[in-house]
Amino acid sequence: MELFYAYDSDGRLCRLDSDESGHCVRVLRHRVGDEIHVIDGCGTMFRCRLTDDNPKSAEAEVLEAIPGWGGHPYRLTVACCPTKNNDRFEWFVEKATEVGVDRIVPVIGERSERKVYKTDRAYRIALSATKQSLKARIPEIAEPLSVKDFIQISPLASLGRNDSTPCHSEPVEQVKESLKLIAYCFEGDTRRISIQEALATSTATDITILIGPEGDFSPEEARLAIEHGYIPVHLGASRLRTETAAVVAATAVYLARG
Amino acid sequence: MELFYAYDSDGRLCRLDSDESGHCVRVLRHRVGDEIHVIDGCGTMFRCRLTDDNPKSAEAEVLEAIPGWGGHPYRLTVACCPTKNNDRFEWFVEKATEVGVDRIVPVIGERSERKVYKTDRAYRIALSATKQSLKARIPEIAEPLSVKDFIQISPLASLGRNDSTPCHSEPVEQVKESLKLIAYCFEGDTRRISIQEALATSTATDITILIGPEGDFSPEEARLAIEHGYIPVHLGASRLRTETAAVVAATAVYLARG
Repeated sequence: MELFYAYDSDGRLCRLDSDESGHCVRVLRHRVGDEIHVIDGCGTMFRCRLTDDNPKSAEAEVLEAIPGWGGHPYRLTVACCPTKNNDRFEWFVEKATEVGVDRIVPVIGERSERKVYKTDRAYRIALSATKQSLKARIPEIAEPLSVKDFIQISPLASLGRNDSTPCHSEPVEQVKESLKLIAYCFEGDTRRISIQEALATSTATDITILIGPEGDFSPEEARLAIEHGYIPVHLGASRLRTETAAVVAATAVYLARG
Repeated sequence: MELFYAYDSDGRLCRLDSDESGHCVRVLRHRVGDEIHVIDGCGTMFRCRLTDDNPKSAEAEVLEAIPGWGGHPYRLTVACCPTKNNDRFEWFVEKATEVGVDRIVPVIGERSERKVYKTDRAYRIALSATKQSLKARIPEIAEPLSVKDFIQISPLASLGRNDSTPCHSEPVEQVKESLKLIAYCFEGDTRRISIQEALATSTATDITILIGPEGDFSPEEARLAIEHGYIPVHLGASRLRTETAAVVAATAVYLARG
């Protein structure tokens, strides 16, 4: 099954941009009359019939709309400090999208070596992984902000986001309860529970996970997070790289709640 | 904490090769008398004192030996078809090593596009990830074999392996029971249980997971696996890439049994 992304759809007609049109018409050789599957990036998959096979601006009429297609029964935000090596962070974006994430927030910690992060490539990777893993909703890629600013913002608030992100997160009124977790590794600290335990003892469906940079959070960041209701969790006995920790955390939610 | 790998250690003296010696002496500027931490790649971590700071052939005397350091309470084999794109398989090797795996077997399926796989780079990635994630045992990297041959071999048997692999798997006599899982995605097949359920309903500590190529297993391969006691499992509702499936499966074991 091949999915196309429509940058514009009104529920009756889907318009593909030049990349998607080229892939649909030139590469896969679809012609007028063919049935194709199109996502709006916001959670709806349309079964469509191609009505214009222009390889730069294809159009398709909607035969059936399936909202919530390929979705999951929780709303997951992963806020993760971009890694020194960009590829590693982009790998996290791809894998988190595959297992399921609703919002990715690049956060800059006091100990982050990378202080600047551009979200354009991350957005394109998320779009590609969304189609590849048969989902209809592209994760929102937020514009970077500091760890401390992120902690002080309600998990339900809108954040600045990549302009290409097609839609905001789920409507706020659907969210009843939030679970906020911070994975940090101060050595000798015994207050942490495992992420599995944190997930098993909460019924919240709005989940936020905060993952620090290579040099960990600063003590002030960790304290601020705990003051704001973040539960310190660990991700098992292995010392994981930043991007691995982020994917293991998203996978823990996927396995526990998916 | 920085770990060095000794290609040769008799329990009293550890010898570093030229790469490790250079990193220890030139990069980190360790000198005779410094305390360093050395792994033998087979599960033992040695607290050592540097006795020769030759940057091409450093040596250190053992002060303390800690067997089973950074280990996990299970023995996990992940047999996975190498992906078309080599980077993706290598990424799996790194991430599986970080979360914990004992043996990685590149298997070639009937529908594999990649029929040849060289294990040298995978071994070096596994060594690096072992040190980075603070473990003393480098996963065994087996030489490639066909899916069908792998299925017909006992999970406790020795396989051909990369010559650099420092040690065989755990002694066979310690293993009492094996759990063998095959992740496959024949559409419409309802006989599969989730990997979490398979792990929760077994007490086996020897676990084998078989992950197919991009084009999935052939029906014959799946049938042969089931005949040989493999339990068909799914990895949740998302369609995951081969390498993502392999890491999600290893992470499921890590979270359930680690």
